[in-house]
Amino acid sequence: MVVKLTDVAKKAGVSATTVSRVINNYGYLSQKTIDKVQQAIKELNYQPNSLARSLQGKNTQLVGLVFPTMRVPFFAELVESLETKLFEKGYKVILCNSANNKEKEREYLRMLGANKVDGIIAGSHNLGIDEYENFELPIVSFDRFLAVGIPIVSGDNFQGGYLAAQTLLEDGCKKIAIFTGANNSNSPTNQRLNGYLHRMKEAALTPFTFRISSRYSARLKGLDIQKALQTEELDGIFCTDDFTAILTLQEAQKLGIKVPEQLKVIGYDGTQFVRESFPALTTVAQPIDDCATLLIELLCKRIKNKEQQLDDLYTLPIQLIKGTTA
Amino acid sequence: MVVKLTDVAKKAGVSATTVSRVINNYGYLSQKTIDKVQQAIKELNYQPNSLARSLQGKNTQLVGLVFPTMRVPFFAELVESLETKLFEKGYKVILCNSANNKEKEREYLRMLGANKVDGIIAGSHNLGIDEYENFELPIVSFDRFLAVGIPIVSGDNFQGGYLAAQTLLEDGCKKIAIFTGANNSNSPTNQRLNGYLHRMKEAALTPFTFRISSRYSARLKGLDIQKALQTEELDGIFCTDDFTAILTLQEAQKLGIKVPEQLKVIGYDGTQFVRESFPALTTVAQPIDDCATLLIELLCKRIKNKEQQLDDLYTLPIQLIKGTTA
Repeated sequence: MVVKLTDVAKKAGVSATTVSRVINNYGYLSQKTIDKVQQAIKELNYQPNSLARSLQGKNTQLVGLVFPTMRVPFFAELVESLETKLFEKGYKVILCNSANNKEKEREYLRMLGANKVDGIIAGSHNLGIDEYENFELPIVSFDRFLAVGIPIVSGDNFQGGYLAAQTLLEDGCKKIAIFTGANNSNSPTNQRLNGYLHRMKEAALTPFTFRISSRYSARLKGLDIQKALQTEELDGIFCTDDFTAILTLQEAQKLGIKVPEQLKVIGYDGTQFVRESFPALTTVAQPIDDCATLLIELLCKRIKNKEQQLDDLYTLPIQLIKGTTA
Repeated sequence: MVVKLTDVAKKAGVSATTVSRVINNYGYLSQKTIDKVQQAIKELNYQPNSLARSLQGKNTQLVGLVFPTMRVPFFAELVESLETKLFEKGYKVILCNSANNKEKEREYLRMLGANKVDGIIAGSHNLGIDEYENFELPIVSFDRFLAVGIPIVSGDNFQGGYLAAQTLLEDGCKKIAIFTGANNSNSPTNQRLNGYLHRMKEAALTPFTFRISSRYSARLKGLDIQKALQTEELDGIFCTDDFTAILTLQEAQKLGIKVPEQLKVIGYDGTQFVRESFPALTTVAQPIDDCATLLIELLCKRIKNKEQQLDDLYTLPIQLIKGTTA
């Protein structure tokens, strides 16, 4: 016979609500009441729902969010959007900043697995984490290839790179460079470079690709940018993130290069914070809210049905936001 | 007799590791193995540690972080700092954006209570949430009064306001205004205004206090700022957050007011992101990392001992970061 909550309540001489409170450690309870209820639970060998649920493989209503950092407004806004939409569906989120640290990311995956979140949404930069290959839980990825079978949601990176180059060409630029991270993975993000290269080829112009490590501090990035600006007489620069674009504007100003007269600059990401703080910056805006909605929809499908067939890649349209820098 | 994990393993004919994996839903398991182990658990009425632990009131190694938003770099950086330091102590964090939404914050408090996190670190803006009054879990607060007995960690807001006014005075400003949020609580944040007012009084100068709602969009804030700049010939402005300072610089530029020649501006918060993106901005930097360290230290004390005596308020020193706007 299955022992019920009401049996515990009867044995302990308290209400069912009180038993529930003891089990869930919620509300005002005297130590005497807690002791009585725990004694009854022990004597009846009662298994509360939380355990029953997990033994039946039911949901914990927790989702792990694995992203590199909150210091980059793009990730902060994506995480906030995910958190808001997941909350509406009754999920809470465990925030995991992988921080360019493979070991931390691995440790988090282990912890999330052991604590049985219902699923994971990951947008980490760390490559070569085998744990993703065989992970038992449903995972969806933002903009990164993690493992075969893990669907990826991305803004249209190729189109974004193409559109940025196109815009600079229409502005009359001839020496157009790209400042991009030193990521060599086969992740969709790299398509920004490919879109740029494709448009440059169409225009029969020489591409200038500068790798600026995303792991560098602002100061080191600034030095790399300064060097690029000094060695080549560039008249257009496409930066594959807004922060690099902001640093480029700073370095141009230091060197007395006038924007947009002598140099045009386009960024990438277009977060609300950057658009409001730097309205002058022309940038390719990612569809943050749409990405969040789709990531959650796909994850929920996989939570409902582990074997749910999904595409490898879902690409959402990007948008050019015109400021005055290009 | 207490049923042990090894008893379950013996009955199911599998290793103890396999039983642990089934209970924690981790690793590679066939459905057959899962069924066998669950049958044995049921027959022996075995209570895994997770339940045993929570019945004994032991730790879940989860901490809830309740902050208004991740869209403001200050909160994003504080949350990242908290997450990093808590991870080092073996804690995972549940991220709760209260989003200027009392009902969401209440709902989160109920969920956190029911899921038994070990404690909560809150820096929410929503006022008058009675749930904090009687909450069973250890809570520490950043910069906000939540309830009697909940310790607050703050940067030195009074000194910050005083120092900002002082700096503008030393720059030769005579008509110095403060642009501050419309928060009327008795939270430490308001001490920024008091520090400014105190210094103005010392200098026998008339203070100009403009309330700019933190709930406004950038556009609405911009209109308020424009109006303030047009109606008063201010020569110094202390903004109690950096984003308002950035908007003020934008509005001044639109109106043809030269900074710093005609108008000096000082912000507040001094996050890494803003300092790197707007190196020109003079700002009062909060000690984000020190606040995170102290918040965690106090929370851990309360987790260890619910009755631990703590101060009502812990105030950490702030620092002026000189740019070129003041």
